Amino acid sequence: MSQGKQTPNEKMPVEGRRRFLNTAAAAGLTVGLAACNDKGGAAASAASASAPGPAAAAHADTAGIHLKPGELDTYYGLWSGGHTGDMRVLGLPSGREILRIPCFVPDALVGWGITNESKKVMGTKPDGSLRYVVGDSHHVHASYKDGNYDGRYAWINDKINSRLARIRLDYFVCDKITELPNVQGFHGIFPDKRDPVDPAINYTTRVFCGAEFHIPLPNQGIDKPDQYRTLFSCVDAETMDVRWQVLIDGNCDLTATSYDGKLAATNQYNTEGGAHYEDMMSAERDACLFFNIARIEQAVKDGKFRTIGTSKVPVVDGTRASNADPKTALTAYVSVPKNPHGVNASPDGKYFICAGKLSPTATVIDLSKVLDWFDGKLEKIDQAIAAEVELGLGPLHTAFDGRGNAYTTLFLDSQVVKWNVEAAIKFHAGDKTAKYVVDRLDVQYQPGHVNASQSETRAADGKWLAVGCKFSKDRFLPVGPLHPENEQLIDISGEKMVLAADHPVRGEPHDFIIFKRDLLRPKQVYALDDFPLAIKDPKESGVVRNGKKVTVKLTSQAPAFSLREFTVKKGDEVTLILTNLDKVEDLTHGFAIPKYNVNFIVNPQETASVTFTADQPGVFWCYCTHFCHALHLEMRTRMIVEG
Amino acid sequence: MSQGKQTPNEKMPVEGRRRFLNTAAAAGLTVGLAACNDKGGAAASAASASAPGPAAAAHADTAGIHLKPGELDTYYGLWSGGHTGDMRVLGLPSGREILRIPCFVPDALVGWGITNESKKVMGTKPDGSLRYVVGDSHHVHASYKDGNYDGRYAWINDKINSRLARIRLDYFVCDKITELPNVQGFHGIFPDKRDPVDPAINYTTRVFCGAEFHIPLPNQGIDKPDQYRTLFSCVDAETMDVRWQVLIDGNCDLTATSYDGKLAATNQYNTEGGAHYEDMMSAERDACLFFNIARIEQAVKDGKFRTIGTSKVPVVDGTRASNADPKTALTAYVSVPKNPHGVNASPDGKYFICAGKLSPTATVIDLSKVLDWFDGKLEKIDQAIAAEVELGLGPLHTAFDGRGNAYTTLFLDSQVVKWNVEAAIKFHAGDKTAKYVVDRLDVQYQPGHVNASQSETRAADGKWLAVGCKFSKDRFLPVGPLHPENEQLIDISGEKMVLAADHPVRGEPHDFIIFKRDLLRPKQVYALDDFPLAIKDPKESGVVRNGKKVTVKLTSQAPAFSLREFTVKKGDEVTLILTNLDKVEDLTHGFAIPKYNVNFIVNPQETASVTFTADQPGVFWCYCTHFCHALHLEMRTRMIVEG
Repeated sequence: MSQGKQTPNEKMPVEGRRRFLNTAAAAGLTVGLAACNDKGGAAASAASASAPGPAAAAHADTAGIHLKPGELDTYYGLWSGGHTGDMRVLGLPSGREILRIPCFVPDALVGWGITNESKKVMGTKPDGSLRYVVGDSHHVHASYKDGNYDGRYAWINDKINSRLARIRLDYFVCDKITELPNVQGFHGIFPDKRDPVDPAINYTTRVFCGAEFHIPLPNQGIDKPDQYRTLFSCVDAETMDVRWQVLIDGNCDLTATSYDGKLAATNQYNTEGGAHYEDMMSAERDACLFFNIARIEQAVKDGKFRTIGTSKVPVVDGTRASNADPKTALTAYVSVPKNPHGVNASPDGKYFICAGKLSPTATVIDLSKVLDWFDGKLEKIDQAIAAEVELGLGPLHTAFDGRGNAYTTLFLDSQVVKWNVEAAIKFHAGDKTAKYVVDRLDVQYQPGHVNASQSETRAADGKWLAVGCKFSKDRFLPVGPLHPENEQLIDISGEKMVLAADHPVRGEPHDFIIFKRDLLRPKQVYALDDFPLAIKDPKESGVVRNGKKVTVKLTSQAPAFSLREFTVKKGDEVTLILTNLDKVEDLTHGFAIPKYNVNFIVNPQETASVTFTADQPGVFWCYCTHFCHALHLEMRTRMIVEG
Repeated sequence: MSQGKQTPNEKMPVEGRRRFLNTAAAAGLTVGLAACNDKGGAAASAASASAPGPAAAAHADTAGIHLKPGELDTYYGLWSGGHTGDMRVLGLPSGREILRIPCFVPDALVGWGITNESKKVMGTKPDGSLRYVVGDSHHVHASYKDGNYDGRYAWINDKINSRLARIRLDYFVCDKITELPNVQGFHGIFPDKRDPVDPAINYTTRVFCGAEFHIPLPNQGIDKPDQYRTLFSCVDAETMDVRWQVLIDGNCDLTATSYDGKLAATNQYNTEGGAHYEDMMSAERDACLFFNIARIEQAVKDGKFRTIGTSKVPVVDGTRASNADPKTALTAYVSVPKNPHGVNASPDGKYFICAGKLSPTATVIDLSKVLDWFDGKLEKIDQAIAAEVELGLGPLHTAFDGRGNAYTTLFLDSQVVKWNVEAAIKFHAGDKTAKYVVDRLDVQYQPGHVNASQSETRAADGKWLAVGCKFSKDRFLPVGPLHPENEQLIDISGEKMVLAADHPVRGEPHDFIIFKRDLLRPKQVYALDDFPLAIKDPKESGVVRNGKKVTVKLTSQAPAFSLREFTVKKGDEVTLILTNLDKVEDLTHGFAIPKYNVNFIVNPQETASVTFTADQPGVFWCYCTHFCHALHLEMRTRMIVEG
């Protein structure tokens, strides 16, 4: 077995690591690319010491990040929750985590996966149990209007089970989850920013979803990897139905959309279609794959699609072989060096930038040229490449400051490099005096995603940069084998980047967005009428029996539940409905039933329900689990299950 | 229904609220005690404005809490995770959350509740599914030696399902969970600090657990609340078996233990045995119930116990009626005003302090006098009360600075009051010139638990005080109806308290401890030999079939799993064992199987396993979910399930 030869504690000579990483170096690569093959950041230091240009070690003592008690943050951050399958809401610049919004994975605080309402969103098996209890969320993006966030929705992906979740940004709750058919390894997502055809639709109506793993279609257990393919999916932003899919070559990594709504793209590795990692990196160039949205939707209208397996979703053919003719092409494969990672849209609307990962380069693609190609005005699609410049080792993701500069993470160098896009284009065009690298900053350690305040909008403001460092090593107090990751905050308001703070985060956030707080106007008390089961008056409380099915109706008002006790019989199927009649902001109640696996909360004016079988006789003190009142401990009701 | 008359937006006159809250005021109490009956902290402000003494509004800009990037915290904080059933590890003074240790509730990041190893700790039903998926953890305490933490273990309770979990503080993992028999509403816990008899045992060997809800014993569905009782349990710190239980009157709230190992105690509300909250608060005084550990254990040795239901645990009789004679008493009920909340041991070893909750007082109990009573040298047990002084409205919990001062949270006043214990004793003894209140500080808002650095040890150092505020209201950016709670950090090194920072936390932490970082020496890489199933060499990898039972043996070394693909048959029961052979600190791998509800991590040199039925045919890309290497995306293996 080839990996039997790995010797992770050896290092390749620095010179060797800085070469363009080609196929011949594959055996050495598994050594040279080891994320951290020494303790305490020595590997990162070695790499950064050898990096060209000045490696700034500056940090800020007083960069405005230290809020006084009670002072509010000025930015929201929406963070992927990684394996906990939630979306995390941070305040920035403080880095404080204010909320976790459960989506793909049960959450025992709010009762996500416990209440009937949340189970309906999450999806259940025929026996009523949850279909999935694990998740792997990577990317968070929000809905747009006129090129900036409009505060309606955010979306987040689950890579393990190919699910897309939508979060309402008024109540900060997940309201819909869609599982993509015939997709494995759903990774990149991005909402569109306007309609490709109708200029009146200047807001998000679609969400694009890239599939990473190529599989048999339909997936019926055949083992012929050369026949595996992936699908690129379009989900309706309102209904959350899958509108259409595109059959493509290659494995999708990230997704980006243009400000004019005409193009979506995904950067691709493994265009080789390999099943083993050395095959996945055998080709010198992979692709950034563009989708012509208007043409795809016309093809669907024209019936030029098929369906796969039991799915009814129309699938159009976007494979390379079927789309060679620009006049009819639905897709365009722009070549990008070796296993690129990340594709990001510049806030001026002109470029998509792909980072090289196994190449030390970033590739700048001119969107107007891509459109020219579709219009038959550009001979070769690769002529859309405006620049391809060296940045450092392991470039992954790019953010923008709205002043023409890009910030790219260098995984292997453990750096962020600030570079000027127009200077890079000049350099690429032949002007070797053009100094495109503006600054470098060491980060701790091995950075993945990066994002700047408002970076993915027309309103990029170049104030803060957050860097998701995959390894924290020695940056926080030791807590056993599982280290937190390190989200570092960098002040990018000046010419030089200044490291402002380290923030530990639970694995593994991947991506995030940061935007000004005034773009959201959250609601903090629910409306009773939003809940069909709401019990609007304590007088409606009681126990209603229908054979073995029993409904228990309850309300809460601190410090009491409307029923002081209730009796059911062993074997009953009990549905308990609880409305919180307290109207005061922040006055949430909980409801737990010992030994019955029930705990959930009801926020002010919220209604939730649970259904369970009363299979254990006895007295069960149902109690309020969310501190509400000086008599909180005394806020209980008794469920008496008669044997 | 009485709560139909509640009008939460009305306030009682302040004068009325400040009276001793007696039974007659019960109807008004439900109004007057409303936690937050106005928006944005107005209620809290009203209460504090009327409080006696100066209400300090100071805050610190430079109190040493603002670490530079890379600077380490000086204290660990172990925080209860509340409804997420985990233990959270914070660095202080920064307030950064470094780790969450799953205990009672599944955790999709580490695979807690997914791996066979974690399911064994959590407990399963006969069908192999988890017995419980919800939790409600309140209190965290750690093992002692010579009156200070020794870094071996921490414990945490689950109130919903009466479970006690132990955390190893070398690897920061939960290794054992015990469910207490015949207990509902298990609330307070405290380890003992030395043995009551053997002076050589100067470290923790027992953990005491108080039960809050009185139930039929055994719990067989009878509805005669006057026959309900609770149990106080002793768990062996090493084996985690329940050693013995004590049958008692009243509902247990918190637990405390003496530094000499002789006494444990629980403060009690509802000594009335009421089933409704107005009955639970009908008596003017409740109790702090003391346990004579040596006598109880002698009684068990002497066979003076019974058992309850199917439990084999010996239960001795600690009810009030059976323990009137001090010479033979196992327990002593010291009276404390009205529904007391919290009992805390002063670091000088002399006193337990109970806060009044519905009385504005704290009661200081002299432990030497309690021992005198058991020795027949004190006529009445209430003569052990050294002081009972007014502090303010809604006193809940108390911390200490090691300089003779106590810090008590006032829930209704939204304040922390600093008071001098010896001065309070003098005042109580008749010296009305003794000024025991030293300082007051408004907090935001409605504080519950409080703890100071090293407060519950002989080494209380009086540097930092953390206050768990139940309501944050306007202190953080709005994130919908569910607000975070607010853990405020206060500098207590000077005469006046200085508010240093607000930290949002996810509901609902309740209690926590804070101690110096040099008390722990965590390990950051596992030992292969600690895992019986470890696959120590990639060459041992493979698929072993035994009828329909299939074992898949895998190792991980970035960027590859030892098997590049493996094939099983539809209907097989598959056990997959994965050993992470990477040895480098922080080089954790994940393992996810799409559509199969499998995701877990393996830290360096760790082994974990999962068992599932291969019920869906097809190709499933198992992938590394924990970023490990530049070729992380390519780190995959294929599970081929033949139909």
